[in-house]
Amino acid sequence: MGILMDKDALDAFLRREFPQIGDDFSIEDVTLEGARVRLNVSDKHLRPGGTVSGPSMFALADVSVYLAILARLGPVGLAVTTSCAIDFLRKPASGRDLVASTRLLKVGRVLVVGDVLIHSEGMEEPVARASLTYSIPPEKPDS
Amino acid sequence: MGILMDKDALDAFLRREFPQIGDDFSIEDVTLEGARVRLNVSDKHLRPGGTVSGPSMFALADVSVYLAILARLGPVGLAVTTSCAIDFLRKPASGRDLVASTRLLKVGRVLVVGDVLIHSEGMEEPVARASLTYSIPPEKPDS
Amino acid sequence: MGILMDKDALDAFLRREFPQIGDDFSIEDVTLEGARVRLNVSDKHLRPGGTVSGPSMFALADVSVYLAILARLGPVGLAVTTSCAIDFLRKPASGRDLVASTRLLKVGRVLVVGDVLIHSEGMEEPVARASLTYSIPPEKPDS
Amino acid sequence: MGILMDKDALDAFLRREFPQIGDDFSIEDVTLEGARVRLNVSDKHLRPGGTVSGPSMFALADVSVYLAILARLGPVGLAVTTSCAIDFLRKPASGRDLVASTRLLKVGRVLVVGDVLIHSEGMEEPVARASLTYSIPPEKPDS
Repeated sequence: MGILMDKDALDAFLRREFPQIGDDFSIEDVTLEGARVRLNVSDKHLRPGGTVSGPSMFALADVSVYLAILARLGPVGLAVTTSCAIDFLRKPASGRDLVASTRLLKVGRVLVVGDVLIHSEGMEEPVARASLTYSIPPEKPDS
Repeated sequence: MGILMDKDALDAFLRREFPQIGDDFSIEDVTLEGARVRLNVSDKHLRPGGTVSGPSMFALADVSVYLAILARLGPVGLAVTTSCAIDFLRKPASGRDLVASTRLLKVGRVLVVGDVLIHSEGMEEPVARASLTYSIPPEKPDS
Repeated sequence: MGILMDKDALDAFLRREFPQIGDDFSIEDVTLEGARVRLNVSDKHLRPGGTVSGPSMFALADVSVYLAILARLGPVGLAVTTSCAIDFLRKPASGRDLVASTRLLKVGRVLVVGDVLIHSEGMEEPVARASLTYSIPPEKPDS
Repeated sequence: MGILMDKDALDAFLRREFPQIGDDFSIEDVTLEGARVRLNVSDKHLRPGGTVSGPSMFALADVSVYLAILARLGPVGLAVTTSCAIDFLRKPASGRDLVASTRLLKVGRVLVVGDVLIHSEGMEEPVARASLTYSIPPEKPDS
């Protein structure tokens, strides 16, 4: 069994479904086990001092798990984030993109758990780690 | 002992130090124990379908704890978020602002922990809960 | 609609299904919205210095959400903890029981989220907070 | 720079300082970057049905990060767990020990963050993941 959406398919999906943020992210690699996604850092992601903001790192972690799920399961309509635990480990290097490496630790019938490590491009020490749970709705959404 | 920064002082601080996001948030109330902060929802916070995005809710939780810390401790230069655990409980109501109610559970010498409950304005059931830890640097920052 | 299991029913269930730990906990109160559960602290819960261990506090948080779910939904066979985020805020007072106050924030078709605040009995400041997610399996368990 | 406490030193420390639980755990490997620790599963760790309990997995994650910190920093008296986020991914295999693989992601002056993956011995898929933050007190403890 291979992935159900490849890099190009995911890229097209992201830009079509999330036009506001599609340009912020570049998909670098995608496999059955996970994905590597880049945040193309621009002014809107920065805090005073030039460091990438927490919400931007959260968004990167969130998107990278979402894309890994799509690659594995296909364009499941309504996968939603149900929780995230994120640790901010050190300041991102200024002037560098961030790269998130995501591994899917569990792909269940209703829950998917992904683990994310975020680095400033080219740096060895991670700037953040996160784990996210997505809920994969069955036929009828949870109300 | 009272709060060290009131609503007006916090509002001025937010707009001066975080000009990119200062207009997104309104401080509704602030006490020694916590704060109530509103996300003035606009297009940039929305996902397809009109619901507020996860990163926007994360940003609201993060800002609200930060403001509660400033109110209690004064303009401590470099308080930084070290971790966040957030649960997304249900879809925000479309067309409504979000309101975060924050309580400081611990104000230690080096760590502050805040608990946040986020509601769509006027709704009874919370849309998200979060807990965040901030690190309050002593004289010399952690390297 | 009222609770489906009251204090006595929960107590009997706990002692029958979890004989190893049933005596460790006392159910103090239970409502549709949550529960209050006591850890009857004894030597086995203590760390050197006489403070209650982290795993014991985790166990208390876990049990208290489980009991709140049972009260609300009845003896659902296989509710399982899928995640927990816990913050240890200060040392428990030595020689005192711990009391967990749990509120169910979401009772969905497949996921339940509960929020827990733990106090040393009679003390104002909480010693820990936790949020837990339980998965409520449908007819067929997640495989 | 090498580790400050090796396997034997850690083992002796564990049994001396935590006599109640020292026999539950075996240190399999320890490096500057982390540790591998086994939970010697016995009846007291089991839930009805023969699966290892959540609190036992929490305890394993907690101990394994603690030991990795000791190996790296030496017998720092009062390192305390300040938070843990744990995801329970699948049922542990019955009749098998659990093995926790821990990596230290950040070793700061006041905070240490470790990442843990727990497997049933010999199984490929993890049963749990956890991240824990420890606070390393300076001369005077946080009050």
